[in-house]
Formats: sequence, C-alpha cells, structure tokens
Amino acid sequence: MSEEHPVLGLERAAMARWCNGDPGGFLEISAPDVVYFDPMLARRLDGHAALTAYYKPIWGQIYAERYEFIDPRVIAAGDCAVLAYNFNSWGGSEDALRWHCTEVYRRDAQGWKIVSTHWSYAAKP
Amino acid sequence: MSEEHPVLGLERAAMARWCNGDPGGFLEISAPDVVYFDPMLARRLDGHAALTAYYKPIWGQIYAERYEFIDPRVIAAGDCAVLAYNFNSWGGSEDALRWHCTEVYRRDAQGWKIVSTHWSYAAKP
Repeated sequence: MSEEHPVLGLERAAMARWCNGDPGGFLEISAPDVVYFDPMLARRLDGHAALTAYYKPIWGQIYAERYEFIDPRVIAAGDCAVLAYNFNSWGGSEDALRWHCTEVYRRDAQGWKIVSTHWSYAAKP
Repeated sequence: MSEEHPVLGLERAAMARWCNGDPGGFLEISAPDVVYFDPMLARRLDGHAALTAYYKPIWGQIYAERYEFIDPRVIAAGDCAVLAYNFNSWGGSEDALRWHCTEVYRRDAQGWKIVSTHWSYAAKP
C-alpha cells in the first residue's frame, strides 16, 4: 500500500468543518482561480471571490450528523492530484444524500490548493 | 488572448463523434487509469476497461442534432489541464439537456489523455 496522498487529509479536514456548518475549510484550501460546479447551479462559478459569495448565505446552515467517504481515489500527476470519491451524508432524515465528487488539487509554494470542485448527485444504488 | 489549449480541440473532436452515436472518440483519448462519473451511475467507474464496457450498449444510441459548449475554461498546471464547461444538447425535443462537465487531461509521451471525467446535470437557468 502506498502512503495516503496529502490531499486526502486536506479534504477530510475541510469536510469535517463543512458538515458542521463551516464552509471556511474549503475556502481556505481553494485557489484564487478555482472553478466550481454543484447541482444547484445553472452555470459554473469562476474564482475564489465568487465561491466565497456563494457560500456566504449557507454559513451555519449545513449540518450532517453522519457522513462517509466511499472509496476515495487519487490520481497524482506532477503538481496536480485528482481526488474522486463517492460521498454519503445524513442529516435529519433517514435517507442518505448520495454524491459524486471530483476535486483537482494543484501544488504551489503554499501547498496543495483546489483548482476545480465538481459536486453532483449520484444515482440511487 | 492566449492561444487555445490543445485539450479543447481534443474535446470538441470527441464530442462531435459522441453526438453522432460514437463513444469511441472519448475512449481513444481516455487514459488506462481514467475515473468517470455521470448521473446514471451510483458509483464511480474506474479504468478504461470499465468505461469501455459501460459505453458498449449505447454505441449508436446517442444523437444530438445540435449542441453547444458554453464558456469552456482550461486551468493548465504542468502536465495537467482541467477543462470545465457547461454543455447544452438538443435531441428530438425542444428542451435542451443542460450539463456541467469537468475533464482532467494529463500529458504523457503519447499526448494528452483524460484521467477524470465528471458529467452532471445543471440546474435550470
């Protein structure tokens, strides 16, 4: 087994904050030129300022009692690392929210930063 | 204006074939270790063989009379290039299918290959 890629720890730490109402973890590790998709958006968001503005109204609004990363995989290529995983989260109801997630991290002098986030709904199993 | 990044031409050529019933264009430019998400999947697909098997039954089944790439953006980082775009396609009905797409290309000795594909539905505008 290879050692865990460092972006996995970054993602887990940001997700723990996210699931406790704090989008700041992801904002702190997102690059100035980040691009972002999720199912609530008609169009792509471009840039850290746009993502910050998008997250502002949901600060303190998102809580998951329980969540799980399913089979995360990292494809490393030089100064980039693609992290792809399924993600299930449980809030107040019994049904899980089921997600697909792809993050692209880029390494610079300050470390690994997210340059692309893509969240979408997974089909029911 | 910078010159167009080469992955854009690759994507457009593969998409022209896709929209004419031929998934082979994307398969030819996908890497052995490609990871793949779309909304019909409950879980991520891993690897070129899995993607080939997944596309096999839809060969000749997908046609779009018209389609458009909306605002494609490339984030280049060394031997990786992230291509993110909105995509609308029209088949037999009036309503467009509206997509988010993120492709990650990695450059090797043979050229640029896709290592990650993520297709999802965009929200209605």
